[in-house]
Amino acid sequence: MKILVIHGPNLNILGNRKKEYYGEKNIEEVNRMIQSKAKSLGFKVDIFQYNCEGDIVSKLNSTLDDEYSGIVINAGAYTHYSIAIRDAIESVRVPTIEVHLSNIYGREEFRRISMIAPVCTGQITGFGPYSYLLALEAIKYLI
Amino acid sequence: MKILVIHGPNLNILGNRKKEYYGEKNIEEVNRMIQSKAKSLGFKVDIFQYNCEGDIVSKLNSTLDDEYSGIVINAGAYTHYSIAIRDAIESVRVPTIEVHLSNIYGREEFRRISMIAPVCTGQITGFGPYSYLLALEAIKYLI
Amino acid sequence: MKILVIHGPNLNILGNRKKEYYGEKNIEEVNRMIQSKAKSLGFKVDIFQYNCEGDIVSKLNSTLDDEYSGIVINAGAYTHYSIAIRDAIESVRVPTIEVHLSNIYGREEFRRISMIAPVCTGQITGFGPYSYLLALEAIKYLI
Amino acid sequence: MKILVIHGPNLNILGNRKKEYYGEKNIEEVNRMIQSKAKSLGFKVDIFQYNCEGDIVSKLNSTLDDEYSGIVINAGAYTHYSIAIRDAIESVRVPTIEVHLSNIYGREEFRRISMIAPVCTGQITGFGPYSYLLALEAIKYLI
Amino acid sequence: MKILVIHGPNLNILGNRKKEYYGEKNIEEVNRMIQSKAKSLGFKVDIFQYNCEGDIVSKLNSTLDDEYSGIVINAGAYTHYSIAIRDAIESVRVPTIEVHLSNIYGREEFRRISMIAPVCTGQITGFGPYSYLLALEAIKYLI
Amino acid sequence: MKILVIHGPNLNILGNRKKEYYGEKNIEEVNRMIQSKAKSLGFKVDIFQYNCEGDIVSKLNSTLDDEYSGIVINAGAYTHYSIAIRDAIESVRVPTIEVHLSNIYGREEFRRISMIAPVCTGQITGFGPYSYLLALEAIKYLI
Amino acid sequence: MKILVIHGPNLNILGNRKKEYYGEKNIEEVNRMIQSKAKSLGFKVDIFQYNCEGDIVSKLNSTLDDEYSGIVINAGAYTHYSIAIRDAIESVRVPTIEVHLSNIYGREEFRRISMIAPVCTGQITGFGPYSYLLALEAIKYLI
Amino acid sequence: MKILVIHGPNLNILGNRKKEYYGEKNIEEVNRMIQSKAKSLGFKVDIFQYNCEGDIVSKLNSTLDDEYSGIVINAGAYTHYSIAIRDAIESVRVPTIEVHLSNIYGREEFRRISMIAPVCTGQITGFGPYSYLLALEAIKYLI
Amino acid sequence: MKILVIHGPNLNILGNRKKEYYGEKNIEEVNRMIQSKAKSLGFKVDIFQYNCEGDIVSKLNSTLDDEYSGIVINAGAYTHYSIAIRDAIESVRVPTIEVHLSNIYGREEFRRISMIAPVCTGQITGFGPYSYLLALEAIKYLI
Amino acid sequence: MKILVIHGPNLNILGNRKKEYYGEKNIEEVNRMIQSKAKSLGFKVDIFQYNCEGDIVSKLNSTLDDEYSGIVINAGAYTHYSIAIRDAIESVRVPTIEVHLSNIYGREEFRRISMIAPVCTGQITGFGPYSYLLALEAIKYLI
Amino acid sequence: MKILVIHGPNLNILGNRKKEYYGEKNIEEVNRMIQSKAKSLGFKVDIFQYNCEGDIVSKLNSTLDDEYSGIVINAGAYTHYSIAIRDAIESVRVPTIEVHLSNIYGREEFRRISMIAPVCTGQITGFGPYSYLLALEAIKYLI
Amino acid sequence: MKILVIHGPNLNILGNRKKEYYGEKNIEEVNRMIQSKAKSLGFKVDIFQYNCEGDIVSKLNSTLDDEYSGIVINAGAYTHYSIAIRDAIESVRVPTIEVHLSNIYGREEFRRISMIAPVCTGQITGFGPYSYLLALEAIKYLI
Repeated sequence: MKILVIHGPNLNILGNRKKEYYGEKNIEEVNRMIQSKAKSLGFKVDIFQYNCEGDIVSKLNSTLDDEYSGIVINAGAYTHYSIAIRDAIESVRVPTIEVHLSNIYGREEFRRISMIAPVCTGQITGFGPYSYLLALEAIKYLI
Repeated sequence: MKILVIHGPNLNILGNRKKEYYGEKNIEEVNRMIQSKAKSLGFKVDIFQYNCEGDIVSKLNSTLDDEYSGIVINAGAYTHYSIAIRDAIESVRVPTIEVHLSNIYGREEFRRISMIAPVCTGQITGFGPYSYLLALEAIKYLI
Repeated sequence: MKILVIHGPNLNILGNRKKEYYGEKNIEEVNRMIQSKAKSLGFKVDIFQYNCEGDIVSKLNSTLDDEYSGIVINAGAYTHYSIAIRDAIESVRVPTIEVHLSNIYGREEFRRISMIAPVCTGQITGFGPYSYLLALEAIKYLI
Repeated sequence: MKILVIHGPNLNILGNRKKEYYGEKNIEEVNRMIQSKAKSLGFKVDIFQYNCEGDIVSKLNSTLDDEYSGIVINAGAYTHYSIAIRDAIESVRVPTIEVHLSNIYGREEFRRISMIAPVCTGQITGFGPYSYLLALEAIKYLI
Repeated sequence: MKILVIHGPNLNILGNRKKEYYGEKNIEEVNRMIQSKAKSLGFKVDIFQYNCEGDIVSKLNSTLDDEYSGIVINAGAYTHYSIAIRDAIESVRVPTIEVHLSNIYGREEFRRISMIAPVCTGQITGFGPYSYLLALEAIKYLI
Repeated sequence: MKILVIHGPNLNILGNRKKEYYGEKNIEEVNRMIQSKAKSLGFKVDIFQYNCEGDIVSKLNSTLDDEYSGIVINAGAYTHYSIAIRDAIESVRVPTIEVHLSNIYGREEFRRISMIAPVCTGQITGFGPYSYLLALEAIKYLI
Repeated sequence: MKILVIHGPNLNILGNRKKEYYGEKNIEEVNRMIQSKAKSLGFKVDIFQYNCEGDIVSKLNSTLDDEYSGIVINAGAYTHYSIAIRDAIESVRVPTIEVHLSNIYGREEFRRISMIAPVCTGQITGFGPYSYLLALEAIKYLI
Repeated sequence: MKILVIHGPNLNILGNRKKEYYGEKNIEEVNRMIQSKAKSLGFKVDIFQYNCEGDIVSKLNSTLDDEYSGIVINAGAYTHYSIAIRDAIESVRVPTIEVHLSNIYGREEFRRISMIAPVCTGQITGFGPYSYLLALEAIKYLI
Repeated sequence: MKILVIHGPNLNILGNRKKEYYGEKNIEEVNRMIQSKAKSLGFKVDIFQYNCEGDIVSKLNSTLDDEYSGIVINAGAYTHYSIAIRDAIESVRVPTIEVHLSNIYGREEFRRISMIAPVCTGQITGFGPYSYLLALEAIKYLI
Repeated sequence: MKILVIHGPNLNILGNRKKEYYGEKNIEEVNRMIQSKAKSLGFKVDIFQYNCEGDIVSKLNSTLDDEYSGIVINAGAYTHYSIAIRDAIESVRVPTIEVHLSNIYGREEFRRISMIAPVCTGQITGFGPYSYLLALEAIKYLI
Repeated sequence: MKILVIHGPNLNILGNRKKEYYGEKNIEEVNRMIQSKAKSLGFKVDIFQYNCEGDIVSKLNSTLDDEYSGIVINAGAYTHYSIAIRDAIESVRVPTIEVHLSNIYGREEFRRISMIAPVCTGQITGFGPYSYLLALEAIKYLI
Repeated sequence: MKILVIHGPNLNILGNRKKEYYGEKNIEEVNRMIQSKAKSLGFKVDIFQYNCEGDIVSKLNSTLDDEYSGIVINAGAYTHYSIAIRDAIESVRVPTIEVHLSNIYGREEFRRISMIAPVCTGQITGFGPYSYLLALEAIKYLI
């Protein structure tokens, strides 16, 4: 069983960016936490980070070949306006969990709207890197 | 270590209500799942269901005496308009997790706004009764 | 056959309140008109008045035990913002008629929106106490 | 005593149109129900159907000659934008009841606004053809 | 030189309608005032009243044959929503003056928007029947 | 096989009206283009022009007798606010194509909303008289 | 009988300013037209031009001493946002006519709202300097 | 002479809650300040705190028996959305003063709207516990 | 100790203006009440009335020389749109109390927004001339 | 003569995606229909599919070298928010036709706005793969 | 060559006002920087500061006599609502540069709208006193 | 000292695109102006043009390695909706200046909102290629 984890734009500079929201850990550390949690749940996991909206769409499109049993996606800033990613998620055939490191509802107005939430299975937001780990557990429950 | 779980209005009739969103399980069954998960995490848990907004406020106010290490709240319909509950949560001193059974972002427009999200630690939505279980795990991570 | 009639907040002071909208009759007089009309239609009727939103929710929840064949509800001010009452009505299994004494569409802007109308069977508004009597007749037609 | 009943646009094709909202009965059958109810209440009734907004205005204007004791109007689609019909109703001197077959509050957003409701005596909506019959009873109460 | 005067919906019942806004005079009296003023300015004048939006459009379309040197139009309620009349005015080749009896800016919100004002030469509003007379004088200045 | 073509308000004065948007051709020339294209596709075609909203509704209602295999409608200004025509189209049983001569999306804000688009089969806009011809081809594909 | 004419901000540079809207005439020429028209109607007239909102308020306040029988005001840009001038007009005891040189409804969106229109007797807009002359005639009719 | 003072939701935890807005004093200390000020003004005072919206409505309804000469109400969070409390205040027959500890206009957007302000006699906001004392003085002036 | 009192536009004509809102007293009478109350509290008071927004800004700017211990300002109509006065208040170093004679929340929509409230210490509204006296008392409490 | 056809994001998975809107055919089948239609019209055609917004911009930019006589673009989800693609189309020198497979006006609210429509020659929407074929015919008419 | 520099309201108290936005320098120091920069560019410069909107309008109007080759304006708070200043700038015949000390886009919502930007040549914002110096350089480039 | 200059989408076709807004110069000419100005200020400069939003994000992310002393960015169309670029700028550690060739405030409504302005140091807009040169000078002042 393999899970796909997608990090959106600017997540590559995690640890360098508004630490009061995103924390001190860099992307490699977060990925190690994800790998370790996945292992403990019996999942394999592929992790990708993209700054380009189109690359996220393409990766999601490619899952139609059914390699993955679940998807965890932090679409970063694209969360709030990418209808293209929304359409890609809507076509996916496995549980797809939207995650956010920060509590997006406690920040700027424009971050309170998620274009992708309506087509995801569920949303986990505000727990820092633990949001990813909880998403993995959620997939465990769902599949 | 004790966790407070609050169910808001109409959750008492779970299993009788729009099952495509809320599922087949009744409130007792969901509560048993919560108790069992809590036990496995080493938590005691108190569970309350209230239809009255003021009762939820009062219960949250009472936690200032510090009996609880964390709070899981599904404020039901009050989520979308209760500034009173928001104010009560804002005064709480322990991690408070907002949960929803259904994906509130995939339903009517008025359900997409949470008045309490900005003052909660995080939000878990869309996983049915598992939302509560994931919230317990989230508290485990946070404390 | 029994019908449930629910009066919402401030209807207890009927006759003392903005008489140009709500008329001269007090709540007891209105209730007598309802009882008398119900009798003439072969209905029994239970009438409750609540100032508390949560009490209205609870009473509506309690009808899932199927004691009533129809519900007439004047949710008063809660009409315009109570999603909790809306959710409770949505779970009810019998015809539910929304009534208003005054023509809510000819008053302040905020009274022109009914949160509960979309989940009621129908709405009767603007006929003073006769709104209740017409609702009873409507139930007669529907059941 | 004579009552005027006005059917607005597209009501001529009743029975052919979105039956989940408007029911199976055609306009002749509905008119017979209205005639029969009127008779039982001691009313004569004149029934007109118009697709043209201006014709509805003209018919309402003509009532200033006081032939009618009450008016029942289902302005159909014009309900939602005809200020001309609103103005005509506002000049009428007898009770005017707005009716709708379907529950307009449970449909598209633009159907939730009635331009004429503020100037009608009251509104009865959501009871299929019974809406007309209840309106006749309402006039009985009012005059 | 001939001027076209168009009265819109419900102006036929002038004198019977919200006299605080529209005054005591009936349509015949107003028309006599217009005729008399026109004469004093050396104009012939044709006056039409229509309740039907389409008839107003047709009459305006017919002026492309250039019979008239100016147009005075009180589009009544259609002022606020008729794009069809707006389009017809936009195609007219002579000065077209929008008039209103009442001060439309001191009434309901929806009366404060004129769909036709942007394509008229000018607007005269709030002077009762004198609005028409001033419009005739305006045309005198313009042609 | 017969197709119904409906021209809305002000299309009778085509060629006299804002030529930068509507072109030089008059309505007879456009109709000849339509007739000729229809013939080449093996269709008969009936063409009507109405300034009155109610007449368009009535004509659309009359198609329930199934004389036509498809409908091409340019509702002109009514496109943007006529719920009555929308309702009439929604009841029609054959493919109905919305056409516009001008690109309505490149003009005033209020022309960017079509009340009828959601209930038409498709929309063709911006190609001058060719919009009608393309609509005939579209019907050819659809039936 | 004396009439007060107030020109608002930037009218001092008339003839130098957006001539397609305001024309070629300078303020002295317009004032001479006003004086001449007033004379022909038997009025004396005082004309003031102010760039300062407060000066317009003060001048309007001063009319409570009843020197003037009517007021003609072109509040210029202040038309669209000055509640102070609105309040001053509301306290005036004589007919007050709002005028505009250009058709304010055919320009930028923010010019379509007049804060003072609801409290003026009437409005005359779009006739260039003739707007002032028509306003004088309007006062003639009103007093 | 007796004054009714009502504290709304979460005021019971005063001193524990966002002290930068609500100050260090707890509810008992504030009540003592109120009692002392009342005494100095020759008033008796009854003070109640309710978390439940319905209880506030009921208490306000009960004043129709005329026991009180004035009412001071801090409706807390309900200020911003309770139409039920608004309706209750609208029916009250004595001066009713709205107070707030914090300057509600300098905080979140949703706190800037008071549903009850339009039906209160006046509003005093931003003076901490002194807001209550000033309200008592205001009643002294008014009665 | 000296207090600065600023009256905004149109307050010079108090007693002549919408008496149902502003009362019968003229500005001199109100000023005498203020002087007398100030004396009783041990304050000196300087009172200014300005119709010009810029003059209010300048007076507020001049307080940076610290002559005053507190400011009471009724900015009149400027309350609702003057960012310039808001900025001036924001730079002031002493308690600044916003007052209004009428209950601005019970009047036109545009009067319900105060641009200056967020930067004032507090607001007292709806008590007629007593609003000023209460503001003086408020300053007494605050300094 | 060569035509450029651009497919936007997610069109690569056509046939796998919400078939009730997009149909059963995959992208290769649609492309063959386009090629075949183009041939019949005497056009060569180049077809590209891009998930990346920037790639669509670049391809459109490249047409300034004038290789193509017309452009058919289905910008997919980017239709609704890509100002970058809009700007690129605005700089193009040949007819550019916007197409959509589904009737975008009959779906979610956010799909009803096309950022690119105002700068395209025309729009064809709702005919499935035939939308592309009709666009080719439209270009035939236009060039 | 002479440049006109206009400082709007509250700029006279620079150095005393929200220093995190406006810096420590007072108006005389800023003016010296402007004079010195102007000299280095070969410009003479006249600098004025006004708190009164009307004075800014008058000064701008006076430039029609062509004394200046360019204008630098920091309209302060009036930036956000003064249509009068906008109109005055629109009539000016030389390059007019809008400047702001602070980044107005990073502050309160109402500061993000500039009424004058659309009619200025360009805008320079966020560089403290250097904004003025850059504006002088901009004029150098433009003339 | 090295400065990074980023050109956004469609700037590669400068000189071919809406010349009334963007001028006649092509991108190479503009770049030469930038290089020359930079040299005169003692800066080295790297210039990049990207049509892809993600590439701009990546380039901005890469500056965390501190190679650059300042950034000049013309994000083109992405200015108005790219939260991803905003987030990237927010993480940058050197002065970042937003520039635009055209006056974006004098064009379409959607161009008046800059998503990135709140997180840039300042904005320079409307000076054609000189905007870039002024931005370089601004950096000179700031560092």
